Amino acid sequence: MAKHLVVFQPMGKRGYIQDGKSIMEAGCELGIDLQAICGGQQTCGKCRVRIEEGYFASLGINSGQVHLSSPTQEEMDHLGSDIIAHGYRLACAAKVSGDLAIFVPEQSQINAEVPQKITINKPVSLILAVQKYYVKLIPSTLELPKGDWEMLSESLSEHFGLQDLDIDYYTLRSLSNIIQESDWEVTATVFMGRKVIKVEPGLVGKCFGLAIDIGTTTLAVYLCDLLTGHVLAAESSRNPQVSYGEDVIARISYATQFPEGLEQLNSCLVGPINDLVRKLIDKAGIVPDDILDVTVVGNTAMHHMFLNIHPRNLAYAPFTPALQSSLDVPARDLGLKVHPAANVHVLPIEAGFVGADNVGVLIAEEPYNQDSTVLIMDIGTNGELVVWNRQRLFSTSCATGPAFEGAHIKYGMRAAEGAIERVTICPQTLEVRFKVVGDDRWSNEGPGIKARGICGSGVIDAVAQMLCTGIITPRGAFNKGASTQRLRRGEELEFVLAWSEGTSLGYDITITQSDIRAVQLAKGALLSGAQILMKHAGVEQLDGVVLAGAFGQHIDKNNAMRLGLFPQIEIDRVSTIGNAAGEGARLALLNLGKRQDAVDAAQWTECFNLSLDPGFQKEFVRAMIFPAPSRSSVVMEELGKGNHCLVDKA
Amino acid sequence: MAKHLVVFQPMGKRGYIQDGKSIMEAGCELGIDLQAICGGQQTCGKCRVRIEEGYFASLGINSGQVHLSSPTQEEMDHLGSDIIAHGYRLACAAKVSGDLAIFVPEQSQINAEVPQKITINKPVSLILAVQKYYVKLIPSTLELPKGDWEMLSESLSEHFGLQDLDIDYYTLRSLSNIIQESDWEVTATVFMGRKVIKVEPGLVGKCFGLAIDIGTTTLAVYLCDLLTGHVLAAESSRNPQVSYGEDVIARISYATQFPEGLEQLNSCLVGPINDLVRKLIDKAGIVPDDILDVTVVGNTAMHHMFLNIHPRNLAYAPFTPALQSSLDVPARDLGLKVHPAANVHVLPIEAGFVGADNVGVLIAEEPYNQDSTVLIMDIGTNGELVVWNRQRLFSTSCATGPAFEGAHIKYGMRAAEGAIERVTICPQTLEVRFKVVGDDRWSNEGPGIKARGICGSGVIDAVAQMLCTGIITPRGAFNKGASTQRLRRGEELEFVLAWSEGTSLGYDITITQSDIRAVQLAKGALLSGAQILMKHAGVEQLDGVVLAGAFGQHIDKNNAMRLGLFPQIEIDRVSTIGNAAGEGARLALLNLGKRQDAVDAAQWTECFNLSLDPGFQKEFVRAMIFPAPSRSSVVMEELGKGNHCLVDKA
Repeated sequence: MAKHLVVFQPMGKRGYIQDGKSIMEAGCELGIDLQAICGGQQTCGKCRVRIEEGYFASLGINSGQVHLSSPTQEEMDHLGSDIIAHGYRLACAAKVSGDLAIFVPEQSQINAEVPQKITINKPVSLILAVQKYYVKLIPSTLELPKGDWEMLSESLSEHFGLQDLDIDYYTLRSLSNIIQESDWEVTATVFMGRKVIKVEPGLVGKCFGLAIDIGTTTLAVYLCDLLTGHVLAAESSRNPQVSYGEDVIARISYATQFPEGLEQLNSCLVGPINDLVRKLIDKAGIVPDDILDVTVVGNTAMHHMFLNIHPRNLAYAPFTPALQSSLDVPARDLGLKVHPAANVHVLPIEAGFVGADNVGVLIAEEPYNQDSTVLIMDIGTNGELVVWNRQRLFSTSCATGPAFEGAHIKYGMRAAEGAIERVTICPQTLEVRFKVVGDDRWSNEGPGIKARGICGSGVIDAVAQMLCTGIITPRGAFNKGASTQRLRRGEELEFVLAWSEGTSLGYDITITQSDIRAVQLAKGALLSGAQILMKHAGVEQLDGVVLAGAFGQHIDKNNAMRLGLFPQIEIDRVSTIGNAAGEGARLALLNLGKRQDAVDAAQWTECFNLSLDPGFQKEFVRAMIFPAPSRSSVVMEELGKGNHCLVDKA
Repeated sequence: MAKHLVVFQPMGKRGYIQDGKSIMEAGCELGIDLQAICGGQQTCGKCRVRIEEGYFASLGINSGQVHLSSPTQEEMDHLGSDIIAHGYRLACAAKVSGDLAIFVPEQSQINAEVPQKITINKPVSLILAVQKYYVKLIPSTLELPKGDWEMLSESLSEHFGLQDLDIDYYTLRSLSNIIQESDWEVTATVFMGRKVIKVEPGLVGKCFGLAIDIGTTTLAVYLCDLLTGHVLAAESSRNPQVSYGEDVIARISYATQFPEGLEQLNSCLVGPINDLVRKLIDKAGIVPDDILDVTVVGNTAMHHMFLNIHPRNLAYAPFTPALQSSLDVPARDLGLKVHPAANVHVLPIEAGFVGADNVGVLIAEEPYNQDSTVLIMDIGTNGELVVWNRQRLFSTSCATGPAFEGAHIKYGMRAAEGAIERVTICPQTLEVRFKVVGDDRWSNEGPGIKARGICGSGVIDAVAQMLCTGIITPRGAFNKGASTQRLRRGEELEFVLAWSEGTSLGYDITITQSDIRAVQLAKGALLSGAQILMKHAGVEQLDGVVLAGAFGQHIDKNNAMRLGLFPQIEIDRVSTIGNAAGEGARLALLNLGKRQDAVDAAQWTECFNLSLDPGFQKEFVRAMIFPAPSRSSVVMEELGKGNHCLVDKA
């Protein structure tokens, strides 16, 4: 099959791409992150790219345009013939048929995210799945010939009481060599007291493990020293599956539509996880073979795609997963670049719609050991909710959507440099000040990094502040009587957060009426989900609310409560715990009891599907309404914190 | 890396070979079987090939010679500069550095063998490792969401009492799809009552297995219907590892000397076994996925190489194997083209020098259940001997060498068409008649297939008949007084079996003094091994001798006894049982009790290394002497059988 040279600018990445592949696929192969909220369905129009004709002129080719398939009807609808005539195309639609140079505009790129802070520190006693044993073997003789494996297993039985041992086939293959090299003194690593997975020459103490959290949007890997239980290093990166769709449904649909879809989505997880592992072991100065145990959490779709199991049934009721139980698979079968015989323990899932990530949250937070009612909200692209009523555990998931991650918001972006992450509005002047990621100062404290957009926590702050300063009503409509020139009508009503001179875009950054609706949809989904689950669990009053997830960690919980993201409760009873799913994976790595807890929790937890509640739609619509603000209290609080009004210096 | 076009004639096979590879390696890649008794060590000189210059003239290249590395000192020694000047080279020494056409003379080719007759028919009751279970599943609902695997395992537990089931990871991956396709009615194949290895839509009864016998010289595969226990088809082929050396020591040395040696030797087994499997499933009209269980026997070196375990320690005392126990490995880990989750059960070995093939012989022949002393001789390139003294089992191996397989014999060849396989000599006229493979008539019964050489059973017959007709003495020397023009002096003394007009070679086929010495070495090794083992076992008189192996099946046991291949015994007490190792693999495939018997037999059998016996050398030298013939009895016997003298019609 013919291949063509494709060059992406401004990244300057290039490679040979098979004839007939889309520019999106070409981008994926070459590591270009293109926006594709719809999962390459040609419906979102976010992946527009410009074909650079000039570049090829120098190569004696007149037009890149002819090196592509003809524009589809969808491209015509999204771009119009004028734009197409200027060289723009949708990356998901246009197919490569010759050499190309392609320019990717900033708005079509997925920005590098500031890695989420990883805060995992719970003390845990070490009860490991792998143990190391040092033995001196007696060399075999002609009079008493004995196999190397028999020598080793008998010695392990005699000195350590390990009975009925088995040896991993991969490990067996190099056994004789290692025994001979080591002069009959070796250290054997035994998994679960029953299987030898590694044999090393001499006395070797070191032993490492990985906890992996596969999020819809973010991948996080923690490297643990299994002798001390310490996290030596952690790395996270964006889940590049985002190119196939922002949410899991779009990705499942991709996997179902394309023959090699699952394979592509699987390599989109395994490849980048291996990249993170490589970074971690380089940091720690160890080698892949030193990693001897791995635990994994993720929602059910990520769980299936990581295991290369087709997720098609997860998109339709009754959302039947391939399995719920925990699973142990040798790393080599999954393509993980650690010791090939290392066991990968994938935590159990609760149901097709509540995954191993929530099980991780459960064993990290242990609501079932508390004598008070609690609501846990793990806020991601999917919201996963848990209610503990002091006797039983209930869980559900709700489609929060990616609004809190900056998507479906006009100037929304991820929490990368330049994203507005904090907003306050003066209740008197309605003037705004903000803070952007990467700059410690507020916008009124002098020139710093210019704003590029607004991320999830900024959206929460902005809408909450607009609500309590009366710029919007509890129903989410703009208050047209608000006396500020920041409120204006563009294509629709919008409120200016940053004037163009304070942005790097060259135009104003605003919150539009549509943005507010998107926030209402997301918060309505979360709140109604929580309320229905509480009703289902017979809980009227909560003793505590726990916000989990990277987003939960970054938001201002006061503003979140003002917006009514969760049921009313004293603010002191709201806590944020960061990436609890990842913490659960770490705990399961270090303590076998936690793996059992996970199995129990997955089994005990009663998963409730919100669509089964007859009042769901009504509850959802009601939950979209913001709580009525108590204006005086807001001002008092703001003043009390020293957040008094400041006239924007600009 | 550059590649060059290499063409082999007269086969007409061609392909691109990497620069720097030897002609031997090129031949291996292209499926050309070149003689390489020394294992490519440049010591046997059997792999001479001629570089065809004319061919390249037409391509505008003057000489193939320049497209090769310069002749080595070993090539100069073996061929001489004259022969090299005529275009001859050693395939193992000459390295490809440009396009080449190569002619392979017949004596450098390994001839296609007539597949060994497979005679396995012992009745055995079926106690299988795999069982099929048909279940109707209850579809999961939103109210009671359950994973596909949980549904299946609970159903198997409820209906068939299968507890604590596990599922193979590969099989899990397609589970959901199959359940859905099949409308929730599936057949699960369960391995050892604990692991689901296959799930099929609907009710499926058929189930197949393979028994594989990996011999040093021959590969044999039996396809069994696991429902009936019948052998549906059997296939055998030459072990192409022969190109790396006739005996296991040469091959182990190859694996040790070359970085990719083991890999090459492993693919030399797995590839051809897969070819045989393909033929078998085509014959039976099934697909690879229908094969759900596999058993394997082979000597320890074959066992290691098949498992991709380095055999280096098997070449040196104390001959420590990597493991002695039986081993279960999923087929996909071994590269076998059957169902990827099918279990491959490799039978245990007794010691580094007595392998799983002998364990196969033991469970097929069950000497331990007999109330009489017995000697079992499995005669191959390696001879494996068992003595049962009615209480204990003893085993050993002896280096028979390949003489009985036609190698190290001047006109020796394998049992392929045209090989002399039967010889009688008239005690009065000393005239010879013979029979060749592929022709039912004797040489004196009119013109038929012409003789090309002599195979193992022909060598045994010829030397035995020469002995009892007085042409040679018991010490193996020619009796110069023998009154026949067939006895003559060429480079050394030799006896003409076939005059040139009866051969396809254009010259006479003879048995030389060196050939007789080779037979003496082989028979000395076998007999002294048997005698030392009997002494070790305290057995003075045998109640029976069993000859196993393809060779054992083809020889004339009277002639074998005349030569003293085994201790003196009434001829009625000598039996031949064919490929008992393969039969053992079949029995282990069909009956789990046999797998346990194999483990027990491997453990009980006392392996004795002949070199530990202080009298070994003396015994060996004595055993090389042939028994003195009783001339009258021979003549009587021959006449009694109607084998009276016939004057050669030629």
